[in-house]
Amino acid sequence: MITLYHWEPNANSGKPMLTLAEKGVAYDSHYLDLLAFDQHKPDYLAINPMGTIPAMVHDGQVLTESTAIMEYVDRAFPGPALSPADPIERWRMRWWMKYLDQYLAPSFSMIGWSVFIGPSVRDRDPDELRAAIDRIPLPERRVAWSKAIYNTFSAEELAESTRRVAIGVKQLEAALTERPWLAGSTYSLADINAFNLAYALPLSQPALANDELSPRLMAWLRAVYARPATKATWAKGRTDMAARVRYLETSEAIHA
Amino acid sequence: MITLYHWEPNANSGKPMLTLAEKGVAYDSHYLDLLAFDQHKPDYLAINPMGTIPAMVHDGQVLTESTAIMEYVDRAFPGPALSPADPIERWRMRWWMKYLDQYLAPSFSMIGWSVFIGPSVRDRDPDELRAAIDRIPLPERRVAWSKAIYNTFSAEELAESTRRVAIGVKQLEAALTERPWLAGSTYSLADINAFNLAYALPLSQPALANDELSPRLMAWLRAVYARPATKATWAKGRTDMAARVRYLETSEAIHA
Repeated sequence: MITLYHWEPNANSGKPMLTLAEKGVAYDSHYLDLLAFDQHKPDYLAINPMGTIPAMVHDGQVLTESTAIMEYVDRAFPGPALSPADPIERWRMRWWMKYLDQYLAPSFSMIGWSVFIGPSVRDRDPDELRAAIDRIPLPERRVAWSKAIYNTFSAEELAESTRRVAIGVKQLEAALTERPWLAGSTYSLADINAFNLAYALPLSQPALANDELSPRLMAWLRAVYARPATKATWAKGRTDMAARVRYLETSEAIHA
Repeated sequence: MITLYHWEPNANSGKPMLTLAEKGVAYDSHYLDLLAFDQHKPDYLAINPMGTIPAMVHDGQVLTESTAIMEYVDRAFPGPALSPADPIERWRMRWWMKYLDQYLAPSFSMIGWSVFIGPSVRDRDPDELRAAIDRIPLPERRVAWSKAIYNTFSAEELAESTRRVAIGVKQLEAALTERPWLAGSTYSLADINAFNLAYALPLSQPALANDELSPRLMAWLRAVYARPATKATWAKGRTDMAARVRYLETSEAIHA
């Protein structure tokens, strides 16, 4: 018996969603609306006091941290292996997950928060927003939400994030030129992790990720999106997720 | 054939060193003096262009990122398993490693850089230091070194680091009150990872980590240090490492 608490099938929520789908494991889906601050409400804090999404409950055990959940799902359930058998490829999978989670994700997400999350909630009642921020349990998440809502990311922070995104795109392009998948010869948790971060880049940063500059990355994004598990998972989105990735279903090129 | 490029047996370098020692795997030790900036010199950049320590070369393959190397060593070599067989305990091991690497380590290390690394090199020839900083390949490492050398960590940054250290000590104490080891019933990579970060706390932050406030953490530090693999590895230190952890060998209590 599995319950997954998640938002849209992207970013951190998409990591366990795609992993469960690839393994063919059914789960009770519990959608939390990030933009309504559902993740900071008492019902959810009773499950995950940190108020972070996603969380998975398996036979009464609460699991958090999306990358650690992916590793758990891959090991605890039957279905296709999503970690390579070869030790070097497995190391490479984990190298990428470390690099994605620690170095690229904070920068990718700062841009997402700046251009999407902040503007999506900014116009609401100021008192309501202030109360919503005050309810956030982790101080560093309060800071991030506050910066997104009041648009106070510094120019320096945003420039550093853009710099890292550019480096990330180049590294992904180089890796996918050398090998079909990030870990090596097989689709792995590293690809799932990276897809959830990178699918939006050709839309939000077309000057950095496009069919001329990063053709391997684009081909890989389309290959990941073509997988039945990805399509089925993305169809669970309640916002315009599917519309946003329509570019991955067509041969229509993205230009800078 | 294994070569390990490492500094003192602590922090990131200690992670593969202790893991190899627990598995009983012999390796060629290649000591890099962090305080002489050996890790940014051409010989080492030819092996790891990022200039980060440690790196391990196994049969010609270069592996970086200490946590990913630990996972590799545990899987690729015989010897005692350092990852629990139980999926939930294995998830907990990875939860801790994620939390340690991403949330606690940057704060623990900022304090270490501020009180130890910076003062250790600050008095050298200014031109030599400037040239050493300019040779650092990763811009974010240039910033960190520059702040340590010129003592320009902001009060806000240091306060946030201290706050996180206090939280980390409380969480470690709570976890070790519930279970003998961080993952659960067996010694694992999570304990190795955490020991390398936490051994210095009772010395550098005795108000936060001491025998009254965090007795379980202290007992666990002593238990990890008592392991033959830890003792043998720490004896490889060239600075005063062994002297620094003498408190772990005695019943002498640390007080706030």
